[in-house]
Amino acid sequence: MELDFTKLDGLLPAVIQDATSGEVLMLGFMNADAYAATQASGEVTFFSRSRNKLWRKGEQSGHVLRVREILVDCDVDSLLIRVDAVGPGVCHEGYRSCFFRQLSAGGEAKVIAERAFDPNAVYGKDAR
Amino acid sequence: MELDFTKLDGLLPAVIQDATSGEVLMLGFMNADAYAATQASGEVTFFSRSRNKLWRKGEQSGHVLRVREILVDCDVDSLLIRVDAVGPGVCHEGYRSCFFRQLSAGGEAKVIAERAFDPNAVYGKDAR
Repeated sequence: MELDFTKLDGLLPAVIQDATSGEVLMLGFMNADAYAATQASGEVTFFSRSRNKLWRKGEQSGHVLRVREILVDCDVDSLLIRVDAVGPGVCHEGYRSCFFRQLSAGGEAKVIAERAFDPNAVYGKDAR
Repeated sequence: MELDFTKLDGLLPAVIQDATSGEVLMLGFMNADAYAATQASGEVTFFSRSRNKLWRKGEQSGHVLRVREILVDCDVDSLLIRVDAVGPGVCHEGYRSCFFRQLSAGGEAKVIAERAFDPNAVYGKDAR
C-alpha cells in the first residue's frame, strides 16, 4: 500500500493517540522520510515545518513516543499512530496533551487540563 | 483566540474523536468558513479538498457528527473535535472509523475492523 503524500506537498497529518488511555496527544506531519524513520525506529518521527527537517519527538526532552500500531485512513492520506508516551506529557507547554484548551463558540479559549511538568525545566528556552 | 489558518493555505486539520468511546473516527480539514459553520450549527462541517466546497459531514448519509467540544492545540493550528456520531459509522467504505487498516513496517495493510454498514446502500455510487 502506497501512502498518498501528494495532497499537502509531500506531507501527511499523523494523529498521535495514547494506546492505553485513548487520549489524543498531538498532531504532527510526516513526509516519506519521517514515516520511514518512524517505521524503522519504532519511535515517532515528524517532519518539522518550522525547522524544515526531521524531528524525532522527544529527541530533546526524552519524551519519546513508542509506536504500538500505525493505522491509515480510507483515502491513504492520514495516519493514526497509537503509542506508549514516555514521560509526563508531550506538549512543549508542559501538558500531557497539546489539546489542553477548549474553544467556545464565541472564540474564548479555556484551559481544561492541569500542567503535568515544568516546560522550562525540560526544554529550557529552546522549546520542543 | 485566533486560529492559525496560514500554514496549509487556509486549512486546519481537525481530528474527530468519539466522545464516548475515545475512538478516533476520521481526520478532515476546515477553512475559516467550515469552522464557523461547525460552531454555529453544532455539526461538524469540513472543507472538501476534492470538491472545493463546504461539506457538512452526513449531509448525504445522515451520519452527522454532533459536536460535544472543540479543543485546540498549543500552536493553534490543529483541532480535536469530540463528537456524538450519529449512525453506524463515518467511513464511506462502511466502517465505523476511517482508520480501519493497520500498516506493517513492510507496507502491507491489514483490515482490523468489521464493516458496520453497507456503503452502497447508504451512499450509492456517489460515495461520501
